[in-house]
Amino acid sequence: MKIRPLFEGDRSRLLAIVTATGNFTQAEIEIAMEVIDDLLGGDEEYRGAVVEDEAGQVVGYECHGPTPLTDGTWDLYWIAVDPRAQGGGFGRALLRASEQDVMAHGGRLLLIETSSQESYAATIRFYERAGYPLMARLKDYYRVGDDKLIFGRALTRTEGVAPSQ
Amino acid sequence: MKIRPLFEGDRSRLLAIVTATGNFTQAEIEIAMEVIDDLLGGDEEYRGAVVEDEAGQVVGYECHGPTPLTDGTWDLYWIAVDPRAQGGGFGRALLRASEQDVMAHGGRLLLIETSSQESYAATIRFYERAGYPLMARLKDYYRVGDDKLIFGRALTRTEGVAPSQ
Repeated sequence: MKIRPLFEGDRSRLLAIVTATGNFTQAEIEIAMEVIDDLLGGDEEYRGAVVEDEAGQVVGYECHGPTPLTDGTWDLYWIAVDPRAQGGGFGRALLRASEQDVMAHGGRLLLIETSSQESYAATIRFYERAGYPLMARLKDYYRVGDDKLIFGRALTRTEGVAPSQ
Repeated sequence: MKIRPLFEGDRSRLLAIVTATGNFTQAEIEIAMEVIDDLLGGDEEYRGAVVEDEAGQVVGYECHGPTPLTDGTWDLYWIAVDPRAQGGGFGRALLRASEQDVMAHGGRLLLIETSSQESYAATIRFYERAGYPLMARLKDYYRVGDDKLIFGRALTRTEGVAPSQ
């Protein structure tokens, strides 16, 4: 697999992926596409990447950005993988790419918000397994019976050993 | 005291109040004024009110709006009272006006985010006394050692007794 920046030509494929996940409402899909357009337009609030499978097909993307009015906190706004490609480690690779980019820009805390709805159960397990404990739950946030869950991870740069040593 | 809508002519007085509280950074003051300008410009994301003292002087304001992608959740974005007028019940009156407006627009949950910094201790006590329990704490959110606190209240319309009964 390969992680690379988003290009204009990815737009229709990303819309297909966001729609195919089945996790997003029409309003959420529209916001996802607005964010993708802002990112492609050079908006510094957003950064992101796509992941390609072995055949060079884009099978997922992620978008993150610095949280306004904070010193070093970032939000992972969207991460989506084509349902036909799920289970192949693409989501994990996108998440790790996002973390690397956040750290490279001085970020120290990465937050992910999601819904407590049953349809997000696999997403929630994904974040927990990836090292994102639940930091907060806002009861009835999205609607009565649908809480907002906030997962977060303190990022620490792992010092590499120089190849020559 | 009197609660009324914001007018264009309130702008400089509101800037003076936001600055005088001493609770906001320059970046936060700029955002507060952008929100006031959006509200004055008719942006439907924001609603608000000012409070006047007995002499007709504006001594505080509040701004709230519907939380995107939620069904019935609203945010109280800003509430500020001139330090010289604090303790006079103006903040409480603004908060109650905000709650009434949220309920009138079908809102059921009002959230308030603030910082855990010591300078916000009086603000935090104010929310707790006004019936806003702490719903969540995001450790190190604003910066290391400065958490985000989220207070919230489920709003329920109190049925009035008709005057003729």
